[in-house]
Amino acid sequence: MTLPAVIAKTIDYFESLPGIGPRTAARLTFYLLRTPRSFRSDFSAAIAALGEKITFCNQCFNVSEEDQCSICRDSRRDQDSLCVVEEPLDLMAVENSGYKGLYHVLGGVLSPLNNVGPDDLRIKELVDRVSAGNFKEIILATNPSIEGEATAMFIREKIKEQNSKLKITRLGRGLPVGADVEFADGETLSKSLEGRQEY
Amino acid sequence: MTLPAVIAKTIDYFESLPGIGPRTAARLTFYLLRTPRSFRSDFSAAIAALGEKITFCNQCFNVSEEDQCSICRDSRRDQDSLCVVEEPLDLMAVENSGYKGLYHVLGGVLSPLNNVGPDDLRIKELVDRVSAGNFKEIILATNPSIEGEATAMFIREKIKEQNSKLKITRLGRGLPVGADVEFADGETLSKSLEGRQEY
Repeated sequence: MTLPAVIAKTIDYFESLPGIGPRTAARLTFYLLRTPRSFRSDFSAAIAALGEKITFCNQCFNVSEEDQCSICRDSRRDQDSLCVVEEPLDLMAVENSGYKGLYHVLGGVLSPLNNVGPDDLRIKELVDRVSAGNFKEIILATNPSIEGEATAMFIREKIKEQNSKLKITRLGRGLPVGADVEFADGETLSKSLEGRQEY
Repeated sequence: MTLPAVIAKTIDYFESLPGIGPRTAARLTFYLLRTPRSFRSDFSAAIAALGEKITFCNQCFNVSEEDQCSICRDSRRDQDSLCVVEEPLDLMAVENSGYKGLYHVLGGVLSPLNNVGPDDLRIKELVDRVSAGNFKEIILATNPSIEGEATAMFIREKIKEQNSKLKITRLGRGLPVGADVEFADGETLSKSLEGRQEY
């Protein structure tokens, strides 16, 4: 049996999304077939509109509907502190933690294996912004992965070249809240020993 | 931070699909933001077209682009055998097993708890089709779940009322290929003992 072309095509598109296999793709497509037509047309319009209406903030490079994002425009935020993240989703996570300062979205991490160098990220823009600005602290919140560490180190050097006295911090490492000491890996435990605090 | 409306809306739509949680929905949406515009517009067009171009075969109720599906129109298929399945995805699975007969798609299973009765499924159409046709065997391939079993039993009674001599079979139950006897549940082992074959 050959599936009707529209169904096969929709399954293919779903399958090309990250983390969606052929079975899930087929299930989603047949689910959509049973939804009201209005749901499908709204969903489809939202996907089509993604690129038209979304741009990147010209200051922090977060996703935005205007030239400058709502965070950069908000003068009530703490203008002294700049948090550097890899992607908009990381920004959302930090935002949910209650952080009230500003952000800079790099758009990825340095990854020589994937041909991502400093010029492919918003590192120059970051360094310029830090030089021109009046920040008291730069928080490097790239992931605690090999690439994330390398990127943080690279950025620290670049900023220090311009302003060797600026306070640069990195997110604290240790046991996540709710974790078991018993099941923690050695690397995490060693970081959490290093970062132990008076109690 | 408030996410741009289009992004928030796309995340909501993804999240309303079965098996997709808020994190996956956000990941898929940000992934789409980075795809070329042509991918997004094709994907969006495919979803919008799902309902316009797809209808149900007027004979077997499989999804189809025409009034009659490609299987029903194919006269080379075995016209003696009719396989009754719950959903189009089940039909695809049976089709992949190499079955060459015809199908009937019920559109679900009897489920009093969810208010699904015989009139909500294509059971009357099935009984009429069997009475009018010349089938030698009806294979009831509903799922081996409580609802699937109840539906199969109900259909068997309805068909027997019209034609008490027609051969009606149910898919064999037992160990799936590649399984371990050690890890099989008691119910499956008992079915596979019942269904043991000379060797």
